[in-house]
Amino acid sequence: MTTQQLVDQIHKKQSFLCIGLDTDLEKIPAHLLQEEDPIFAFNKAIIDATHHLCVAYKPNTAFYEAYGLKGWKSLEKTIEYLNSSYPELFTIADAKRGDIGNTSTRYAKAFFEELNFDSLTIAPYMGRDSVEPFLEFKDKHTILLALTSNAGAFDFQTQSVDGQELYKKVLETSKTYKNSENLMYVVGATKAEFLKEIRQIIPERFLLVPGVGAQGGSLEEVCRYGMNEKVGLLINSSRGIIYASDTRDFAESAAQEAQKLKNQMELLLKNR
Amino acid sequence: MTTQQLVDQIHKKQSFLCIGLDTDLEKIPAHLLQEEDPIFAFNKAIIDATHHLCVAYKPNTAFYEAYGLKGWKSLEKTIEYLNSSYPELFTIADAKRGDIGNTSTRYAKAFFEELNFDSLTIAPYMGRDSVEPFLEFKDKHTILLALTSNAGAFDFQTQSVDGQELYKKVLETSKTYKNSENLMYVVGATKAEFLKEIRQIIPERFLLVPGVGAQGGSLEEVCRYGMNEKVGLLINSSRGIIYASDTRDFAESAAQEAQKLKNQMELLLKNR
Repeated sequence: MTTQQLVDQIHKKQSFLCIGLDTDLEKIPAHLLQEEDPIFAFNKAIIDATHHLCVAYKPNTAFYEAYGLKGWKSLEKTIEYLNSSYPELFTIADAKRGDIGNTSTRYAKAFFEELNFDSLTIAPYMGRDSVEPFLEFKDKHTILLALTSNAGAFDFQTQSVDGQELYKKVLETSKTYKNSENLMYVVGATKAEFLKEIRQIIPERFLLVPGVGAQGGSLEEVCRYGMNEKVGLLINSSRGIIYASDTRDFAESAAQEAQKLKNQMELLLKNR
Repeated sequence: MTTQQLVDQIHKKQSFLCIGLDTDLEKIPAHLLQEEDPIFAFNKAIIDATHHLCVAYKPNTAFYEAYGLKGWKSLEKTIEYLNSSYPELFTIADAKRGDIGNTSTRYAKAFFEELNFDSLTIAPYMGRDSVEPFLEFKDKHTILLALTSNAGAFDFQTQSVDGQELYKKVLETSKTYKNSENLMYVVGATKAEFLKEIRQIIPERFLLVPGVGAQGGSLEEVCRYGMNEKVGLLINSSRGIIYASDTRDFAESAAQEAQKLKNQMELLLKNR
């Protein structure tokens, strides 16, 4: 998917919501456990109920890998279902990969070609030759961790490197990577005030923003500091939506929560 | 496996060699492609031919994930074969994972419990709460990326943070993590002279050292600067051993290359 197609979808739906599919057998409604593939059954129900309210889905691969082969099968079925039933939706494999050159190419092929995801999250620690192999894929997007929304972000990401926080160094350096137009960035909502300076470094790129809601970030603040001319934001919510209820009406409850966020987004898009 | 069991094995075998199982369908001998599971067939032959010369095996998970479900099956069969046939060998899932707390716990369970690996490589960028969930597992080892052997290592890892390179900051900070005795570190051999200062920060921990041979590092220098009282080194070689030959005698050729490194290690252990 091109960036423009994503932007068009945002305007059409008046939403820049991404729903995180962190699907956990211990948290999904008990009646689904009788299904042949409870994880896929849950995901399918959530997707069918919410696809008109969001523009992206983001399965966190850890939740699938935790169940070994079965989990990978559920992930494959989920992305196949998204690509066949809702091809307009942007798909993110939240895998936080990164390795040396030829190994990164392996990961890129696995997620961009085998599974046909539109994008993949990547950790920056290993630098240029660990990131550039992902950027070679046309109309695929590499979402680099810049500033994450967890407490440990302050261990290294906000440490000063030559008078500049490490995450800003990551933003600056990554701009020099080949095909950097295929980059997006993870920027946690819990530090919304940081977005102003981040936008000075990368005015044009899309930001994937976790941490709105459950982790305490404010949607309004994120938009005030982070929105650009092409919107440029994907706001992720996982648990707050998919685990809104654990009864038989879980999918409707999820849709209600998604609708609330979508309504706020519609207002923010109109008033900008 | 406890660290002491690993040390005992090193002394018994007079080797601290780790063999990287970066198994690639495009590089393995053509006659294996007729097997039901060519990747496992290749790994099994390599393991059977080399297990007495090394103390550890390290499959890089990217090579398996690249083949989707089939690849994961090959990885499962490989670790099951190692655990059942050669339980004395230390096993490393080279997965370079790392995520926020509850997600890291998922990865820990997947690799330490489901697959029963002894250890897992982890990227440090997300800090404390992304690493500590791995450290809770008794007799399991978390191998943190500190200084990698690729060119991109100079993008961020060697940048100065408060007058100290980032990788040293990672070493220092990680020492304060809960259960930090379960940490080991990745330190590339291409920067062997850096090992002296690294040993001042973490005198006791094991180092997993890639980049000897193919990437230009010298085994002798690594040992001079990096060896501690308990040896404290695992030297990894992947392509130089497993792809020594692509004919029917590939396993014997791999064993010959492993034997050469093992002989050098034996000498270095005797002369220290």
